[in-house]
Amino acid sequence: MKISEIESFLGEDVGDFDIFHDLLPDKSVKAEIVPKQDGVLAGLEEAIRIFDYCGISYSCSLMDGDTIASGETTIHLEGSSRAILRAERVSLNFLGRMSGIATIVRLCVEAVAQTGVRIACTRKTTPGFRKFEKKAVAIGGGDPHRFNLTDAVMIKDNHIRVYGMDTAYRCARDAGFMKRVEIEVENAEDAMHAAELGADVIMFDNMNADSIVECISSLKENGLRDSVVLEASGGITTDNLVLYAKTGVDVISMGALTHPSLWLDFGLDVE
Amino acid sequence: MKISEIESFLGEDVGDFDIFHDLLPDKSVKAEIVPKQDGVLAGLEEAIRIFDYCGISYSCSLMDGDTIASGETTIHLEGSSRAILRAERVSLNFLGRMSGIATIVRLCVEAVAQTGVRIACTRKTTPGFRKFEKKAVAIGGGDPHRFNLTDAVMIKDNHIRVYGMDTAYRCARDAGFMKRVEIEVENAEDAMHAAELGADVIMFDNMNADSIVECISSLKENGLRDSVVLEASGGITTDNLVLYAKTGVDVISMGALTHPSLWLDFGLDVE
Amino acid sequence: MKISEIESFLGEDVGDFDIFHDLLPDKSVKAEIVPKQDGVLAGLEEAIRIFDYCGISYSCSLMDGDTIASGETTIHLEGSSRAILRAERVSLNFLGRMSGIATIVRLCVEAVAQTGVRIACTRKTTPGFRKFEKKAVAIGGGDPHRFNLTDAVMIKDNHIRVYGMDTAYRCARDAGFMKRVEIEVENAEDAMHAAELGADVIMFDNMNADSIVECISSLKENGLRDSVVLEASGGITTDNLVLYAKTGVDVISMGALTHPSLWLDFGLDVE
Amino acid sequence: MKISEIESFLGEDVGDFDIFHDLLPDKSVKAEIVPKQDGVLAGLEEAIRIFDYCGISYSCSLMDGDTIASGETTIHLEGSSRAILRAERVSLNFLGRMSGIATIVRLCVEAVAQTGVRIACTRKTTPGFRKFEKKAVAIGGGDPHRFNLTDAVMIKDNHIRVYGMDTAYRCARDAGFMKRVEIEVENAEDAMHAAELGADVIMFDNMNADSIVECISSLKENGLRDSVVLEASGGITTDNLVLYAKTGVDVISMGALTHPSLWLDFGLDVE
Amino acid sequence: MKISEIESFLGEDVGDFDIFHDLLPDKSVKAEIVPKQDGVLAGLEEAIRIFDYCGISYSCSLMDGDTIASGETTIHLEGSSRAILRAERVSLNFLGRMSGIATIVRLCVEAVAQTGVRIACTRKTTPGFRKFEKKAVAIGGGDPHRFNLTDAVMIKDNHIRVYGMDTAYRCARDAGFMKRVEIEVENAEDAMHAAELGADVIMFDNMNADSIVECISSLKENGLRDSVVLEASGGITTDNLVLYAKTGVDVISMGALTHPSLWLDFGLDVE
Amino acid sequence: MKISEIESFLGEDVGDFDIFHDLLPDKSVKAEIVPKQDGVLAGLEEAIRIFDYCGISYSCSLMDGDTIASGETTIHLEGSSRAILRAERVSLNFLGRMSGIATIVRLCVEAVAQTGVRIACTRKTTPGFRKFEKKAVAIGGGDPHRFNLTDAVMIKDNHIRVYGMDTAYRCARDAGFMKRVEIEVENAEDAMHAAELGADVIMFDNMNADSIVECISSLKENGLRDSVVLEASGGITTDNLVLYAKTGVDVISMGALTHPSLWLDFGLDVE
Repeated sequence: MKISEIESFLGEDVGDFDIFHDLLPDKSVKAEIVPKQDGVLAGLEEAIRIFDYCGISYSCSLMDGDTIASGETTIHLEGSSRAILRAERVSLNFLGRMSGIATIVRLCVEAVAQTGVRIACTRKTTPGFRKFEKKAVAIGGGDPHRFNLTDAVMIKDNHIRVYGMDTAYRCARDAGFMKRVEIEVENAEDAMHAAELGADVIMFDNMNADSIVECISSLKENGLRDSVVLEASGGITTDNLVLYAKTGVDVISMGALTHPSLWLDFGLDVE
Repeated sequence: MKISEIESFLGEDVGDFDIFHDLLPDKSVKAEIVPKQDGVLAGLEEAIRIFDYCGISYSCSLMDGDTIASGETTIHLEGSSRAILRAERVSLNFLGRMSGIATIVRLCVEAVAQTGVRIACTRKTTPGFRKFEKKAVAIGGGDPHRFNLTDAVMIKDNHIRVYGMDTAYRCARDAGFMKRVEIEVENAEDAMHAAELGADVIMFDNMNADSIVECISSLKENGLRDSVVLEASGGITTDNLVLYAKTGVDVISMGALTHPSLWLDFGLDVE
Repeated sequence: MKISEIESFLGEDVGDFDIFHDLLPDKSVKAEIVPKQDGVLAGLEEAIRIFDYCGISYSCSLMDGDTIASGETTIHLEGSSRAILRAERVSLNFLGRMSGIATIVRLCVEAVAQTGVRIACTRKTTPGFRKFEKKAVAIGGGDPHRFNLTDAVMIKDNHIRVYGMDTAYRCARDAGFMKRVEIEVENAEDAMHAAELGADVIMFDNMNADSIVECISSLKENGLRDSVVLEASGGITTDNLVLYAKTGVDVISMGALTHPSLWLDFGLDVE
Repeated sequence: MKISEIESFLGEDVGDFDIFHDLLPDKSVKAEIVPKQDGVLAGLEEAIRIFDYCGISYSCSLMDGDTIASGETTIHLEGSSRAILRAERVSLNFLGRMSGIATIVRLCVEAVAQTGVRIACTRKTTPGFRKFEKKAVAIGGGDPHRFNLTDAVMIKDNHIRVYGMDTAYRCARDAGFMKRVEIEVENAEDAMHAAELGADVIMFDNMNADSIVECISSLKENGLRDSVVLEASGGITTDNLVLYAKTGVDVISMGALTHPSLWLDFGLDVE
Repeated sequence: MKISEIESFLGEDVGDFDIFHDLLPDKSVKAEIVPKQDGVLAGLEEAIRIFDYCGISYSCSLMDGDTIASGETTIHLEGSSRAILRAERVSLNFLGRMSGIATIVRLCVEAVAQTGVRIACTRKTTPGFRKFEKKAVAIGGGDPHRFNLTDAVMIKDNHIRVYGMDTAYRCARDAGFMKRVEIEVENAEDAMHAAELGADVIMFDNMNADSIVECISSLKENGLRDSVVLEASGGITTDNLVLYAKTGVDVISMGALTHPSLWLDFGLDVE
Repeated sequence: MKISEIESFLGEDVGDFDIFHDLLPDKSVKAEIVPKQDGVLAGLEEAIRIFDYCGISYSCSLMDGDTIASGETTIHLEGSSRAILRAERVSLNFLGRMSGIATIVRLCVEAVAQTGVRIACTRKTTPGFRKFEKKAVAIGGGDPHRFNLTDAVMIKDNHIRVYGMDTAYRCARDAGFMKRVEIEVENAEDAMHAAELGADVIMFDNMNADSIVECISSLKENGLRDSVVLEASGGITTDNLVLYAKTGVDVISMGALTHPSLWLDFGLDVE
């Protein structure tokens, strides 16, 4: 997190002139941050950067990605009462949001651990906060997938509707030899065509598990399975996740990981 | 939404050099944005600002706050295929996140409509995205509550622990005659003291409904009820919301409105 | 003051490439900052942040809000000659402008001390510099009043002209239960109406002292005085300030505090 | 004024979420901006840029630099009531502050018109607002002087104290052939030495008028007068300005032009 | 190019207060932009965005990537003389720098056209200007290669020295299934190992053409050639480019494309 | 270099989420930076600021402007392997680009050392990077010339075409007494007129050496030589530089210094 980002996030929560905390006599206090639910810790690095910026001392024996238990102190703080009271909400917001994501991701990852399938997020993120959401996914053991339109190419349904798969694919390859190219398909025929074109990744978009199994069979029969990574996406939740994991795909991506995700509640208690 | 914000949000999703869309031959296309669930529309103003910036024409007969039905086209788009394909994800992310919040808020507001209680959000928001989350709350019919530490004073448990209620209250009043002062309490005794000091708002923090009823009785008996706004907060969900609404408080605030909120899924379909 | 602000303010005064100071051989020097008039110190915290950023050591036994006397050294500096010569003008500009404001505010506050009236500033500030001007007002003992359009609602003459007081008031209340609502009036009738609506603050706008006295009598007679804060504003200067303070209002606000205010001149003398 | 600046200045005054004006029903209204004192108009270009950004129509037959009379409408506005009520304070703050400066500058310029002396401002400006203050000086007929440390070199008392005039001058010349070099002096001897070194400008710093006359005589006697521009600065006010103008200097610079300057009050009246 | 970027680039060249052009009486003029050498046009889109921002009309029948001839007018301009004189240098700097790069790239691309080898640039770019330099490479027909450390993984000599190829490769794969992984090698043994690990791209770093030929033979003999993209880099110039193109690699990358590249000189002539 | 600049430059090269380096186990390593050609060191200050920001220790016995030899270690680094691998490219890009410029400038300066002529650069720089390019010129012993349109006035061919030299000159003088005024001429007649007007600097624009000699003769004959600085510019390269230096001008400016300049290659080798 850049200093300019810390200042911007703190500025959002503090406002232009927080005279109340200026008027409170400054004292040296201790405080502790305690989760109110079990989960996976994330956002620790961000919280620490905020404490550093505000001149607050901290100690913490955990790392991002560690399991945390409800009620067990996660971070010990010591410093100016004004500084701690000012930094409280922003740091808890990072911890709460990022740990919530990491916790759900970890659940999903563990649910499919036996299959070797990779759990990935999407670009359905909160505007301006993507890098923290993707990082929380990685902390939980998930795959951050493509970050933005620059770093890899996905040929989606709308691209195919406007340009056709072949034209879109040719432009994708011209975009640079260092970019992976992924094609979204909705049936076996398109999957075969995508594989023949040379796609690096094929995504089965909003298909049910049975149809995906069929597609993979077709690909295998035609010797096209091994040269591509296969991804399932669309309508996959914690309920049907295992079903999809058993289809034989390599990756399952879920928008839900970064949007209506769990918020892991933390409290800050001054001693 | 400022132009600098639009550029920043688009920049996050597009990256530094989206050569793929540059290489696609530009065409004029039509597209439509369609919700995949019923809900309350929010984020329309933001989506429109993005389309405007990208030179995309739109038409929409709805307004933020209107009810929308799954599958019914919400916005019609027309313009450059490159521009629409580039603006798609960012605009859907605004619509999805903000409509999700507005939908949940509307549900809560309607659930307590008979009691006249106001539903408010908190500062448990996504860093950098608060103003859009608070706006979605207002669109859903909720109260945005305090925006940041500057615009009103809340004397919370940690303030009282460090300074005592009296000292904290005196500093709060010195902070300016235009600021409301709210005090968090956990029992009737503190509520009485807060009211006697002259607090504008008293918040019952993490108390059960019965205890709140008792507190209000005490305040009434001592002629202190009418001069304060009473707020309940902490552990209130859609399940127990009505119970709290019947206690006699004026406002119920729920962190849940802005964090693990519903994401209302929208699709963009090029014709 | 954020680091990004320090860099921006220094950048304005230094420009893109101050080669002259780069070419001067660097030496370790001592210097002192000395006011050229009596007054109230403000801007010290800002000056110190600038010195810190530039790696200049300082010592100062005073605090913002202390009285300073012409010719008496306020801050001792020690460090790189290049750094001190570069930081000189920006730090003096903060000290000069903010101490000028604090000095005038202190005079006004002391002039009305017996009446218990609060002296407040307005939003007539220098664009981009408001938070420093409001802070200087607070340092001088004044009230910073509303910071911006978000943090409280003022229903001004133009609002009433366009919407009428009742409609404007209803929208103001819908804007959130944490916002104070102030209504500007120009006669007793409007003052009565504003009080009956439930305004938190009533401002007597550009009225002479006698008219204000009459208004307050009417409010008292109708039992409406105690529920509102009363503010006088418009055309109040150091000359007629005491006259207004005796009318019985609670607050007097003066645009003059932040605009054509005194500039307290400081010099920086290298030893 | 850049769009990013307009957004920043408006953002300071509007805050993050001005829900009150959002809730007011939007209407089309007319309004006019009227000065409350006689003076010189400045800030018109900035006000217009703000109206443009906010979608407000305007008409104005005056230009920056024109004389304006108390009570005579300066700008006619037409547009959304919300937009006008939101843009009011920021635009008036530009007009008030810049016209105040231009008015005082014009008075000074006219006071010395017969002598041909140029009136200049200094770097004693409000941090972050210098370019608007310097522009107002130019609009009033004054000279903006050096903008920052990059664009010209001034060898001031502190430079001389640390490095001596000769070393400082050599570095100044090495800083680039496109930069003017000015040297501050406090007596005839130093003035002579500065002229002999080849300074482009010599500033008589905090000297009384008689001493300046003597210095100029010495320079003339030694044939050094014509090759330098002579500037008087320090302690010069509207009271003693003419006295200094008659000494024979070319330029008089006054910090007072940009700091405790007149604020020319403007009102905005919705019809 | 974002509006905030245009304002920043113009701000660099104009400075804070360009009073000279303000004082020039504004006129409507025509002008034309003319290259002083033959080459490939690039930067046109950027120049046009600057003219748009400044309110200057333009006409141009060429597109980025077209061949241009010395002395033949490229862009016709019409508009305010002040605006054109202010926008001149910035727009010519974009045209000159970007066309210079595109011209050299085109030469290299054509030199190896028969071999089907792709010409790519590197991250040896001007800080802050990379996206324009990479875009110019693409306009010239080259490949932009990896943009930054996020979008693909390169395991370079220093990574291997610190971590060994195997550990580095494992971390690279954990970084996400959407990222290509490239490994730098300096001999056949390492090339074989990299291919066996499963690298997407192998770069022959600072190797002479003969050694590369040998490496490729080894890869072929072991059936590892077809699964990887082969890149040559280091010390390749226009002189030895063809030699390297004949080795059988797929891509040649040259830092020289973006640094000491040709500047294609353009003039702007007011009629 | 501001912290905000460091963060921006690093951000360009690292991207939003460089997970690969996050995954590499952090180690303490030593490394050294070694030039691959002889030259003049520049960019050291910038590289050091980047290392500081990244928490990397360094030692270096050289200073910007010192001569460096191919293969001789310039900077020793020690610190986190992740930090060094991340900071490598940005710091090398500053060193490479700035040392390239300083090296060429030094060659030119030495070539004309006997004549006393000053070597200057122009505004033909990379957008956004000018201050580093001008600084490298100064480090090499050159003159940075005018930085932007604000700090000095140049009346160029296009100004004269639109306004005539006299009008343009009058506006230039009105722009402020602290600005140098330079006039571009193409023949002796115009040079004479420019000198008579009082120009501080006259630039011979795209003239051959013989014509310049003639112009200077005319100026001398008319007693106008000593009052102006004479500059030659346009089409001057390292090949014909000495020829121009012998014409009697004071300054030679070359756009080539900052554009297709040498890139001095540096490597970073982890031990």
